[in-house]
Amino acid sequence: MPVDTWRDHICFLHRDCTVYPAPDYLGPNKVDIACGSAEIRARVNVLDDDQVVGRDEIGLSQYAFDTLGLPEGTEVTLERATPPDSLSILRGKVAGSELGMDQMRDVIRDIVDYRYTEREIVAFLVAASKELTLSEIQALTRARAEYAHHFTWSREVIVDKHSMGGVPGSRISMIVIPIVAAHGLWIPKTSSRAITSAAGTADAMECIAEVDLAPEALHDVVEAAGGCIAWNGRLSHSPVDDVMNSITRPLGIDSTKLAVTSILSKKMAAGSSHVVVDIPYGPGTKVAQLTEAEELAALFEAVGAGVGLTVVAVPTDASQPIGRGIGPALEVRDVWSVLRNDPDAPSDLREKALDFAGIILGWDPLVDDGRRRARALLESGAALERMERIVDLQGRKPKPVGPGSLAYDVLATRSGRVTGIDCYRVASIARRAGAPMDKGAGIDFLAAVGADIKAGEPLYQIVGNVEADLRRALSAADEQSGIEIE
Amino acid sequence: MPVDTWRDHICFLHRDCTVYPAPDYLGPNKVDIACGSAEIRARVNVLDDDQVVGRDEIGLSQYAFDTLGLPEGTEVTLERATPPDSLSILRGKVAGSELGMDQMRDVIRDIVDYRYTEREIVAFLVAASKELTLSEIQALTRARAEYAHHFTWSREVIVDKHSMGGVPGSRISMIVIPIVAAHGLWIPKTSSRAITSAAGTADAMECIAEVDLAPEALHDVVEAAGGCIAWNGRLSHSPVDDVMNSITRPLGIDSTKLAVTSILSKKMAAGSSHVVVDIPYGPGTKVAQLTEAEELAALFEAVGAGVGLTVVAVPTDASQPIGRGIGPALEVRDVWSVLRNDPDAPSDLREKALDFAGIILGWDPLVDDGRRRARALLESGAALERMERIVDLQGRKPKPVGPGSLAYDVLATRSGRVTGIDCYRVASIARRAGAPMDKGAGIDFLAAVGADIKAGEPLYQIVGNVEADLRRALSAADEQSGIEIE
Repeated sequence: MPVDTWRDHICFLHRDCTVYPAPDYLGPNKVDIACGSAEIRARVNVLDDDQVVGRDEIGLSQYAFDTLGLPEGTEVTLERATPPDSLSILRGKVAGSELGMDQMRDVIRDIVDYRYTEREIVAFLVAASKELTLSEIQALTRARAEYAHHFTWSREVIVDKHSMGGVPGSRISMIVIPIVAAHGLWIPKTSSRAITSAAGTADAMECIAEVDLAPEALHDVVEAAGGCIAWNGRLSHSPVDDVMNSITRPLGIDSTKLAVTSILSKKMAAGSSHVVVDIPYGPGTKVAQLTEAEELAALFEAVGAGVGLTVVAVPTDASQPIGRGIGPALEVRDVWSVLRNDPDAPSDLREKALDFAGIILGWDPLVDDGRRRARALLESGAALERMERIVDLQGRKPKPVGPGSLAYDVLATRSGRVTGIDCYRVASIARRAGAPMDKGAGIDFLAAVGADIKAGEPLYQIVGNVEADLRRALSAADEQSGIEIE
Repeated sequence: MPVDTWRDHICFLHRDCTVYPAPDYLGPNKVDIACGSAEIRARVNVLDDDQVVGRDEIGLSQYAFDTLGLPEGTEVTLERATPPDSLSILRGKVAGSELGMDQMRDVIRDIVDYRYTEREIVAFLVAASKELTLSEIQALTRARAEYAHHFTWSREVIVDKHSMGGVPGSRISMIVIPIVAAHGLWIPKTSSRAITSAAGTADAMECIAEVDLAPEALHDVVEAAGGCIAWNGRLSHSPVDDVMNSITRPLGIDSTKLAVTSILSKKMAAGSSHVVVDIPYGPGTKVAQLTEAEELAALFEAVGAGVGLTVVAVPTDASQPIGRGIGPALEVRDVWSVLRNDPDAPSDLREKALDFAGIILGWDPLVDDGRRRARALLESGAALERMERIVDLQGRKPKPVGPGSLAYDVLATRSGRVTGIDCYRVASIARRAGAPMDKGAGIDFLAAVGADIKAGEPLYQIVGNVEADLRRALSAADEQSGIEIE
C-alpha cells in the first residue's frame, strides 16, 4: 500500500474483513503474517473504506511489504502473535530475579528476533543496567558473543588489546601490535574510528594503509604477519548491539556492566584467548577516579575468568595527552618516531606501549620478562620491520597522508610553568582544525608539561589543510588554549 | 480519514506535501498539530497516493481526529514536537540520580501530558521501581496527589482507613466507619470492588445501599452523618495511575514503594489528615512475612510524615479468614451481627474492627482510651444507628441482597482437629460459587480453626443462587477443600 510508516510494520484490514474479525486485533498486541518461511510481526490498523483493501485482503505498509519480501497477491496466514517463551524470564529480571545462562540466552535470542515489544526491551535493559550479578554479566557476555562475528584460528593462543579510550594521542596499538607480532604471537586487532575524539586507531592507520578489510583478508594478513590493525566497523557489527544501543543511547543509559559484556563478547567471538584492557582514568574520560578504574579492571578480569578469557586490565593515567601530536597523521608521525627509535621520540608513548606489549609477551611461558623482550624487539628494529609488513599486507597507501601544510602557532599569554593540559579542550580544538575528517589536521605540542615558558612563546601549533577550519580552531584556542600555566 | 489506528495518534502527509517536507518527519519523533488551544501530538505516516490526502492537507486517524476535536477543513499548524523540558531530569533518574520535589513534579506533569515517548516512561518507571529514596517517595506522592480527585472539608481533622487487602471476610470498614462517625470524627471512606478476591467493601455495601456516589453526594453524606462507605471507582480515578498501570501491570512491576505513593497521594487529595493502614501479612497476601509487613508499615508512616499526613500502619495476621462468611451478602450478615451485638457475632471480626476504630479514636485528644471508647459506641448501639443513617443517606436498597437461596455442605473426609484454612483456596471456591457478581454467593464456615471434627461432618456451606456455579464450586471443594485437618 502507498503508506510509509517508517520502521513500523503495519498491516491493514477492512473493518468487515470476511476472514478475520479485524477490530479484535486493534491494540498494542501484534499479529504474525506468514507464508512458508517468510514471516513478519505487525500491528493492525483497521480501514473503513472499500476502495483500498478488499474484505478478503491484507494490506501492508511499504516497510512491512519489503521485509516480508513476497509478491503482491500471495496467499498468507494471519495469527495473533504469541508472547515469546522467554517473557516470564524477562519479567523476572524486571522484578529483580537473577538469570542463569540459558535464561539469558533465551531473552537475548527473542530480543534479536524482534519477538518483544519495545517496552519489554526497555524494561529489561533498564533493569539490567541497575542490577546484574557477576554470573549474569558472564552469561550476557556469552549470549552476546553468539551474535558477534566469529573468527576461527589455527592456533590456541590468540592475544588482543582493548582501550576504553579518552586520551588524545594514545596511539599505542600501532606500536604494541608490531612488537607482539614480531615476537611470534598472533594479535588480530580491530579498532574503531573516532566518534567524539580527534582520531581513532583506524583513522590513524588509514593514513598509511587500507583498514576496511573483509574477514577473509584480515585472516590472511594475520596468518602471514601475526597481526593486523583493521577497522572494526563491519567486522564487529552485532544485531544485539543495534537493538541495545538504539534504546540505551537516547535514554542516556551508561552502564559499565553492559559495556563490559559488549567488549568481551566480541573478543570471545574474535577467537581471543588473552586480552589486555587499558582503562584510562582522569577528568574528561568515562572513569574519573583511580578507585573506579580499579573496580572496572577487577570486573573485566572476573568476567573474563568466567567466560574462558585471560583478561588483564590496567588503569592508566589520563590526565595528560600522550605523544606530541593529536590528529591522525600527527599521531602516525609520533608512532613512527618510536618504531624508528628516534632519540627525540615521545617517551610517554614509547613507555606506555612497552608496558602493554610487555604484559602480552609475559603470557608466553618461554618469556621471563615481557617488558624486556618488548624493548628488545623495538630497539632491534624488528617491530618497525613487522609494521612495514603489516602495512604492505593490508594495502599500503600509494600516497600516505602526512601532517597538513598549514600551521599556526598558539602563543602563551603569560609566563610561568606548564602545569597541565586539558585533554577535552585540546581534542576539541584539534577537531575544529578538521580532525579526524582532515587526517592531516590536529595539534602539535611544542611545550611539555613541566616546561618553563615565557609570554609570547609558542605552546602548540594548529595544523591542517583548510584555512577556514584553522581560523575556527585558532579562535577557540585564543578563547581558552587548554594549557595551564602557573 | 477512514483509518482506525486504535490509541495511536497518526497524521498522514502526502510525500510531495507543498507545505512541509513530509519524509523528514518519518521516525519515532512526533509532531504537534494545533489550532488555538486544541492540540495533539502525533506520529507521521507518509502517503504516496494523490487520491487520499491532498498536497496541502493533513489527514488524521480516527482517534487523532476525535482527540483534536476540530471540524474537517480547519486550518492547523504542524511543528516538530520538542522533547519535554523535563527529559534531562528523567534521564538523570534512569542513570541513578535522586530527584527533588520540583523535578518529580515536572516529570509527572509531562508524563500525564503525553509529552514523553513510551520508552521514556517505561525507563522511568523501571528505574523508579528499583531506586527511590524516602524523599523521592514523598515527592512522588505529592506530585501524584495533584492529579487525584480533591475534596475540601469544613474541618481540619479528617480521618481515613486503608487496607492492603488479601484477607477473605475482613470487612472491618463497615464497623469502623460507623463507630468513628458516631464518635463525631469525619471519615469519608471510599473502597474498591473485588478484583481477584470474593468481595470488596464496595461490593458488600452495595448489598444494602448505593455506593456509586458523585463527589457532591459523598460530601453531603459525610456532612450529615460524619462518614460514608462509597465506591472509589470514579472518585479515585487518576490519569497518573492510568499511565503507570498500563505499563507496570503488563511488565509485572510490583513495587511497594510505588504502591505507597499511589495510596497516600489519594488520601492527601481526599483531604485526610490522619490515616490508619491495615497491612495483612501471611501466605497468599502481597506481604508474606511479619518483618516485611513491619518494613512496609514503617515506610507508610515515614512517607506520611513527609507529606503532612499522620499515618499509623499496623501489620495484622492474614493466615486465616476473618468472620464466618466469604462473599458480599454473607459478610454483610456478619457485620450486622457485630453491630447488633449478637452474642454469637464473629469475635475476630469484632475485635479487629475495635482495634482499628480504637487507633482512630485515640487521635482525639479528648479520648483517653480509644479502644474503650470504640467498644462503648458499639455496645450502646450508637454504631448500628449511625450505620443505618449512612445507609439511608447513601440510598437504601429497597430490596437488600441476602445470602443465596441454595446451599450445599462440604463435608470433612477425615476426623481430626481443624488446624488451618487456606485463604487463597477458599476465596477461589467462593468465586466459583459466583461471588462477587452474585452478591449472595460465597462460603459460610461451620467449623472454626481449633475445632475437633469427625469425617462426614460439615466444614462449610457453599451458598449462591445459580445451580451450575455451585456445582463447579462443589467440585473444586471436593478436590481440595482448603481446610487443613490434622
